Amino acid sequence: MSSNVIKRIKKLQNFLSFGCAAIISSQEGIYYYTGIYSDEFIALITRNKAFIFADKRSFESIPHFLHRIYKPILLDFKAKDVAERISAVHNIKHITFESSVQYAKLKRLKKLFARVRFREKLFQMEQLDRLKAFKNVPCGTFLNDELLQYEVAAIDHLRRIKDGGEIKIMKRSLVIAEEIMHAIRQKIKEGVSEVEIALEIRQIALAFGCQDLSFPPIVAFGRNSSVPHHLATRKRLKSGEIALIDLGVKWKGYCSDITRTFLTGTPSSIIVQNYHSVSSALQKALNFMQSGIRTDKIYALVNQAFREHGVAELFTHAAGHGIGLNIHESPSFSPKDRHRLYRNEILTIEPGLYSQTWGGIRLENMVMITQNGALVLNKLPTDIQFASLRHI
Amino acid sequence: MSSNVIKRIKKLQNFLSFGCAAIISSQEGIYYYTGIYSDEFIALITRNKAFIFADKRSFESIPHFLHRIYKPILLDFKAKDVAERISAVHNIKHITFESSVQYAKLKRLKKLFARVRFREKLFQMEQLDRLKAFKNVPCGTFLNDELLQYEVAAIDHLRRIKDGGEIKIMKRSLVIAEEIMHAIRQKIKEGVSEVEIALEIRQIALAFGCQDLSFPPIVAFGRNSSVPHHLATRKRLKSGEIALIDLGVKWKGYCSDITRTFLTGTPSSIIVQNYHSVSSALQKALNFMQSGIRTDKIYALVNQAFREHGVAELFTHAAGHGIGLNIHESPSFSPKDRHRLYRNEILTIEPGLYSQTWGGIRLENMVMITQNGALVLNKLPTDIQFASLRHI
Repeated sequence: MSSNVIKRIKKLQNFLSFGCAAIISSQEGIYYYTGIYSDEFIALITRNKAFIFADKRSFESIPHFLHRIYKPILLDFKAKDVAERISAVHNIKHITFESSVQYAKLKRLKKLFARVRFREKLFQMEQLDRLKAFKNVPCGTFLNDELLQYEVAAIDHLRRIKDGGEIKIMKRSLVIAEEIMHAIRQKIKEGVSEVEIALEIRQIALAFGCQDLSFPPIVAFGRNSSVPHHLATRKRLKSGEIALIDLGVKWKGYCSDITRTFLTGTPSSIIVQNYHSVSSALQKALNFMQSGIRTDKIYALVNQAFREHGVAELFTHAAGHGIGLNIHESPSFSPKDRHRLYRNEILTIEPGLYSQTWGGIRLENMVMITQNGALVLNKLPTDIQFASLRHI
Repeated sequence: MSSNVIKRIKKLQNFLSFGCAAIISSQEGIYYYTGIYSDEFIALITRNKAFIFADKRSFESIPHFLHRIYKPILLDFKAKDVAERISAVHNIKHITFESSVQYAKLKRLKKLFARVRFREKLFQMEQLDRLKAFKNVPCGTFLNDELLQYEVAAIDHLRRIKDGGEIKIMKRSLVIAEEIMHAIRQKIKEGVSEVEIALEIRQIALAFGCQDLSFPPIVAFGRNSSVPHHLATRKRLKSGEIALIDLGVKWKGYCSDITRTFLTGTPSSIIVQNYHSVSSALQKALNFMQSGIRTDKIYALVNQAFREHGVAELFTHAAGHGIGLNIHESPSFSPKDRHRLYRNEILTIEPGLYSQTWGGIRLENMVMITQNGALVLNKLPTDIQFASLRHI
């Protein structure tokens, strides 16, 4: 853990230009840069030092190994003076921060470093050469010459590339999610309600020893499946209806996220047809994904696949997203997101069609970008045989 | 539900001065003002109108009854024009927002309403009379003449006073939390581990049909109890150790939060002595709390009680907080928070002592401010008889 934390701090420090420091204050960010899951620490990372601010109650809980990496600072009435002194000694002119930070927390931090300018995005032309030297750093919008005009939210992007330990944990998180999906497939029966299935998902996840789910499970029967972020209701499943299940767990802090759509009884031909459209769009996207490809291009490809099937107007959702400590991380497969994919980045791809008349169909896999394109991490099939529950 | 929502919108509208509107975008805020648990809607409330912005995927999920209260607006490429038109027609000069909003979301909202000034806090001298007419509105720092110089984060404060429906739900949320604490008390045995107890808490909450816990349960044995926000480890309970349990559930969106500290075997005399200090500080605070009292005074009272016992330096945590849809809401019983208590406000009070040598003791109850002072909502005892598990 300790060596991972040091590597991550170094990566961030390499990204910082002179006069710039970074503040990490989110629970996930603190976990990433300290190994401790806490929203009570504030980490300040300058080009060659690392500090942890903690109030009295959490100061004592800073573990011994962190003292070797960070200089702990007590958040009391003197903290403002200390912060000002650090800013002066380390010549900090501006501080960058996570875009997920709450407005209220940011305001408190600004008070602590009163003389320093806060700005989310970092970019100075002088950085370019240094950035180019760090090919492994996902500062996508920088390295691509035609996009030099874009600034970048540095901290949010540094978590995109997963290290070996993270990849191992995320694979395990996905294995558990797939085991749950398998178990849930057996539970889908005529008359079962959405909330009953949602409760089953939580209970199985607990039995696996997961700290939590990545998000409240989406269990949507029949027309409810047309709402991509449907919350489970008391609706009971009828034969011939769609059962859309979107679930994920948190394992050692890392999220998994998968969707399968089950077709019960004898589904209508339009449902079968659209199922094939979704699975073929998924396959096309997977074949196309590789390091260097822009995320909006993946979205466009999925959209194009649906257009060829004449159903593009039912594709109302983004086609996927980055995933890691948070369920949704940068980038997103949407028309506006123009980031390039990186090696060892983990993302989900989730084409879907949503109709007010027959419901919705979505298939979601997790993929890792490798030297040879996109490696699908899922084992669970996406074909219509697996999806068909004819006995119901 | 619908009538509650309308009342809440009216309360907010009464608070808005000319030229001012409010944006609600948090999941909890949206639930409060629409009855729908979603972070996909954005509500814009002006002095006499209410709008919901929703993207294509969530637009369809706006339920019928909300259409009678809100004018739905599709968040697409035209949304910016619509937002500008609304600002012009309703003469919106500035927009207030929740302090819990994420920086990234706030940035998007600012783009939508490009010509409007965003500022969290609202205050214009002209408002004073109107505010005085709304005695029920918890704009504490306004109504108190000596504190007129303070501005107030309006939206965060409006949720402080609970209506009848909320009080009923929160009482139920607490009943469940207390049932869990009862069940957990039976499970505390020599050799049981913190994570095992934490898992039990989650499973019992699920069996009650709770959507979730309010927060990851704090289960801390022995010296671990000296860390107020300890995360459960594999540590197993030994006879004579403290077992501190802090838990709460979410019931229909509303949080409960209680702490009990159990003393096993034959506790040392210092532990017994400090248990009495904590329970007497709790009792003093409960007796003193009433509508109009300032929160920093409650903190000072608890601190004074501990000083009389010679243990004030072990009191390193705030003494309690507001609670509702979020686990921590305004106000806080801390030295810096100077809000006055209001009738029908629900808060927790949680004095505690934390020592590196013998561990920590905390007792936490939920109280409602009534005409006659603080009504303790808990049924679970706080006395040392209940806390003592001598058989272990």
